[in-house]
Amino acid sequence: MSAMAPPEFTVEALVAGLIASGQTVATAESLTGGLIGATLTEVPGASAAYLGGVIVYQTELKHRLGGVPVEVLERDGPVAGSTAESLAAGVRHTTGATWGLAVTGVAGPTSQDGHPPGTVWVGVAGPSGVSSRLLGLSGDRSAIRVQTVGSALAWLGELALGEDWS
Amino acid sequence: MSAMAPPEFTVEALVAGLIASGQTVATAESLTGGLIGATLTEVPGASAAYLGGVIVYQTELKHRLGGVPVEVLERDGPVAGSTAESLAAGVRHTTGATWGLAVTGVAGPTSQDGHPPGTVWVGVAGPSGVSSRLLGLSGDRSAIRVQTVGSALAWLGELALGEDWS
Repeated sequence: MSAMAPPEFTVEALVAGLIASGQTVATAESLTGGLIGATLTEVPGASAAYLGGVIVYQTELKHRLGGVPVEVLERDGPVAGSTAESLAAGVRHTTGATWGLAVTGVAGPTSQDGHPPGTVWVGVAGPSGVSSRLLGLSGDRSAIRVQTVGSALAWLGELALGEDWS
Repeated sequence: MSAMAPPEFTVEALVAGLIASGQTVATAESLTGGLIGATLTEVPGASAAYLGGVIVYQTELKHRLGGVPVEVLERDGPVAGSTAESLAAGVRHTTGATWGLAVTGVAGPTSQDGHPPGTVWVGVAGPSGVSSRLLGLSGDRSAIRVQTVGSALAWLGELALGEDWS
């Protein structure tokens, strides 16, 4: 599960697993611009597991809406593990969800702040704390966004439902 | 432009038109769950026109993240023109965008609060004030969401760029 979005049944399995275990998720999205939320809400009844979240496309909104401290943005920039973790923790806190899931990175076609397209950080905040992962994705803008959605949801599934959730 | 999503070139034309005229947009999405933001950010360089916004899927988030007064939600419910207008004005205020664009309604497959699937309110807040429109859409869950995105973006284009923007 790294190069493709999960097939339809997998998103449905993720939503069903979250609902069955009484867990909820909220999202903070940059390069995907809402595509994680749109994917989760393809599933009828998703509202029992997906609360909503923020789209923080503009860097300033990562602070104003996403709760990333200005110092973090100035020190590490928008494409950083610290920023992804702060976004995940922020949206979890704002919404009261069990899990906060955040993505920030470069979809392309051009580099941003010295990072090439495909440089993507995923952050997850949950009951045990916050962590982040760096993805190195390839392909065009659309492929990078779709892979980001798939990788983020797959990691959430592992953490929330266990290694064999899918 | 009522029953279909705008073709790719139209979203690109909308983003290009907003950029050329120095206007920005922010979104507050319920039934589409982020699909409007995801559609706008398919366009490379969209960050010059699209700031971000909120996904307020859960009703409580329409108040907490979207700024809809509790009294409005209690009186009119989440599927209402007043709620759409309040969401649009709220996200415009929060982000400082030229335009706030909001959608709330029923994607289905089941009715919600007595409203059948396809009952969708679009709200737009801009320099001249706030207004809303009721859409009566048909089709399955996916079709209703895609038509909502198309209608919302088409209306934004009319208001921001003029009747013949596309």
